[in-house]
Amino acid sequence: MTTFAAPPASPLLTARDDAGLPARFARSAQTTRGVHLKTEDFPAWLAARGRANVFKVEKIPFDELDGWSFEDGTGNLVHRSGRFFTVEGMRVTSDTGPYREWHQPIIKQPEVGILGILVKEFDGVLHCLMQAKMEPGNRNLLQLSPTVQATRSNYTKVHQGADVKYIEYFLRPELGRVLTDVLQSEHGSWFFHKSNRNMIVEAHGDVPLHDDFCWLTFGQISELLHQDNVVNMDSRTVLSTVPMGPEGPRHFAADGTFDWAVDGSFAAALDRARTPDAGALHSDTELLSWFTAQRSAPDVHAERVPLTGLPDWTRDETRISHDQGRFFDVVAVKVEAGSREVARWTQPLIEPVGPGVCAFLARSIEGVLHVLVNARVEGGFLDTIELSPTVQCTPGNHEDLPDEDRPPFLDLVLNAEPARVRYEAVHSEEGGRFLNAEARYLVVEVLDGEPGAELDPPEGFRWVTPGQLASLVRHGHYVNVQARTLLACLNAMGGGRNA
Amino acid sequence: MTTFAAPPASPLLTARDDAGLPARFARSAQTTRGVHLKTEDFPAWLAARGRANVFKVEKIPFDELDGWSFEDGTGNLVHRSGRFFTVEGMRVTSDTGPYREWHQPIIKQPEVGILGILVKEFDGVLHCLMQAKMEPGNRNLLQLSPTVQATRSNYTKVHQGADVKYIEYFLRPELGRVLTDVLQSEHGSWFFHKSNRNMIVEAHGDVPLHDDFCWLTFGQISELLHQDNVVNMDSRTVLSTVPMGPEGPRHFAADGTFDWAVDGSFAAALDRARTPDAGALHSDTELLSWFTAQRSAPDVHAERVPLTGLPDWTRDETRISHDQGRFFDVVAVKVEAGSREVARWTQPLIEPVGPGVCAFLARSIEGVLHVLVNARVEGGFLDTIELSPTVQCTPGNHEDLPDEDRPPFLDLVLNAEPARVRYEAVHSEEGGRFLNAEARYLVVEVLDGEPGAELDPPEGFRWVTPGQLASLVRHGHYVNVQARTLLACLNAMGGGRNA
Repeated sequence: MTTFAAPPASPLLTARDDAGLPARFARSAQTTRGVHLKTEDFPAWLAARGRANVFKVEKIPFDELDGWSFEDGTGNLVHRSGRFFTVEGMRVTSDTGPYREWHQPIIKQPEVGILGILVKEFDGVLHCLMQAKMEPGNRNLLQLSPTVQATRSNYTKVHQGADVKYIEYFLRPELGRVLTDVLQSEHGSWFFHKSNRNMIVEAHGDVPLHDDFCWLTFGQISELLHQDNVVNMDSRTVLSTVPMGPEGPRHFAADGTFDWAVDGSFAAALDRARTPDAGALHSDTELLSWFTAQRSAPDVHAERVPLTGLPDWTRDETRISHDQGRFFDVVAVKVEAGSREVARWTQPLIEPVGPGVCAFLARSIEGVLHVLVNARVEGGFLDTIELSPTVQCTPGNHEDLPDEDRPPFLDLVLNAEPARVRYEAVHSEEGGRFLNAEARYLVVEVLDGEPGAELDPPEGFRWVTPGQLASLVRHGHYVNVQARTLLACLNAMGGGRNA
Repeated sequence: MTTFAAPPASPLLTARDDAGLPARFARSAQTTRGVHLKTEDFPAWLAARGRANVFKVEKIPFDELDGWSFEDGTGNLVHRSGRFFTVEGMRVTSDTGPYREWHQPIIKQPEVGILGILVKEFDGVLHCLMQAKMEPGNRNLLQLSPTVQATRSNYTKVHQGADVKYIEYFLRPELGRVLTDVLQSEHGSWFFHKSNRNMIVEAHGDVPLHDDFCWLTFGQISELLHQDNVVNMDSRTVLSTVPMGPEGPRHFAADGTFDWAVDGSFAAALDRARTPDAGALHSDTELLSWFTAQRSAPDVHAERVPLTGLPDWTRDETRISHDQGRFFDVVAVKVEAGSREVARWTQPLIEPVGPGVCAFLARSIEGVLHVLVNARVEGGFLDTIELSPTVQCTPGNHEDLPDEDRPPFLDLVLNAEPARVRYEAVHSEEGGRFLNAEARYLVVEVLDGEPGAELDPPEGFRWVTPGQLASLVRHGHYVNVQARTLLACLNAMGGGRNA
């Protein structure tokens, strides 16, 4: 057995991993009293930001869209600049699942945007610079967004609007230190091959505080994540990339070692899953191998087709809708805003016909928390499948399906006893593209021996630890945006917060 | 500071990582005398396999293809079964590089195949079950391939040929233990969105030895990797996925710790780069962030277009070729073979017009080996860019370009002093799709202060350790197939082998 002496101190080399980072995040997550805004004062602050700006959103007929029109020939909904995004048709064929072929409208937005949170230590605790940002599709209009949430068109001035504040920290990372930076997919049912850059950058030196921005600890954001429709999707996906360490010390014995024996609670199982040496039901290699097999298996093909003549979909003056009233409509809105780069504009949005449900089943295995992921096909994914929550659906779309075609575990989640619901809140999807797209996010505990707790789940499902999900989220195209929201919610659980 | 006591022994949980695996691979890499075939007897064994089977490949006109034809309308070259692959057109636009728009033929093969090496311990040392396999495009026809090298059409019997031997170990991993399993891209200049599953599986129990197969240690394969045109591309890409540990003990002090001070050799720098705690010029997070920025930046669009009427390309009776004689031809061959699933067939192949050059510049930074990677756009990549060798090109295609448009570092590599060439061999690309597609693979050392050794290289280039590349190769779409071949070659260096 050979061992490795520490290499000599080097002026050029750096450690490959910053081993102290998870503990710094955990410390911030345990801090529910920030040095700036108090959490209890947050609603008043947000309301004040709302009063300081005039926001108005109303639906309009397509022919009142300014700069947008249905292109000759294809019928695709496009902007005259050729930028922003287009609404086109998509045809998907699959050799699995209850639907073997379908057509749908889809948003194509090939640009990669930046979703970035700037962080900085105050009194030794990381704080996040968050923004009160209006998006036309948001429930409540104003939600908490990352420091920067910008398409390339935004920050390269296609909008001809105001500068994107703090963008320099994300375009020139040498102004600070990059803590996470990864391209992540967005909704594969509504976007074609869309991904955004998710970044957390730690600022060097003083950071000016502009209107509509506030500093919050991860612990404060965790509290807000337990409220409905406060923390927007862009924040949630960035928060999911945090490598969260165990919170302790509640689950640590007097000598400072992790106490595996005493505390059998859900919170302790979650904290154990964050320890670096926590085991898992499947090794990382087994998990990656299962994922690779799942990704290799389905014969799924998605191609863009013209929006004109799209089977099963009909366009009238105000919307494009499914002939059975399912899935979503494409609609148009007029927006007036005081705090955006451009003060007034019109745009298309996708409006789902009903609220969604996204849930992880969760269970302790030998004292370590695991959640049940699903290898899910979505037509707009760049690469076939990604890991999704145990349940991800709009229940209304499945009401008249035979039992065997209903989404697995949906009824178990909908009928869970309140005591088993470890996390629950309603969140909005991206308000810049989706109108009133809400889903109820849940973490539902199942106990050994109960339905849903089987260690050998149905084909396409697998038990993984939150720590394993966090490792996968360092890379793109593994974990879909709904599962990333739930991972952010798991990061926000612990201490007294719902665990 | 909290510490983690070892969790109690658990019947259900497993460690997330198999920390002992790199050392097992390293032990096999140090073993150049396998318990079965000796390396010096390998040429005779391969020649005997060649004599045991009749192989004949000849070029034919397109109209002598059996089952293949140019489709009405598109002019795409397709098989009547609708399976295997098609040759279509591709149009690429880019906002960077000397070429902003081009058209080319491209192979579309949406199926995911399996490239798998079965390994097993004999006398405590891992041996690989390798196959002498004929591919029509290979120089020498017969090369060393993985245990299994099969398209989905192969193993689901579209060929109506013989069974694929040992395929059960890769379709039913419970017959052994999966050591690596990852979807990796193939040539983005010749394939549209092609990826294959790269697997290493350790067999449980006895494994029957069929004709055309032999057991070799990683050390023996390393010796063969120093010969021209012996180890095929499919083997090389699988070998690149091995998490190779340091070989030692040559670079270890008497007390068993790594000796950072004494040995300043290239071999020692390579071995240091394999130690788990070796530092790097850039942390993994910095490397991922740079990669993410590179992938987000280019405005590259590739779309399939009909092969008929493809600008700059002309089809005659025997080939489709570029009007300036550059890049490659599409040709057709007739194959007669005794050892393949089907004994005779015809098929199209891509034949490059000249040999390629793929090279890593390599240098020690504070005693740790680094190689210079390039974030490279290839039109057929699923996701814009992947990391490629420092130099990857067909020099003949660039002969009349002005100096500023010649590939960076090409002249430095072509003019390197022999003493600086740490690795050199000619290898063939995939012989099932490419005819006589050879490239000279090199690792060229540069010393501090010399041209090419700058720590702050040109835009699009970055110094990384082989250990960092190995971490990226656990996931798909980071490292292209040429860089993976060079990583396999680096894995094969050490001991007395060219380092």
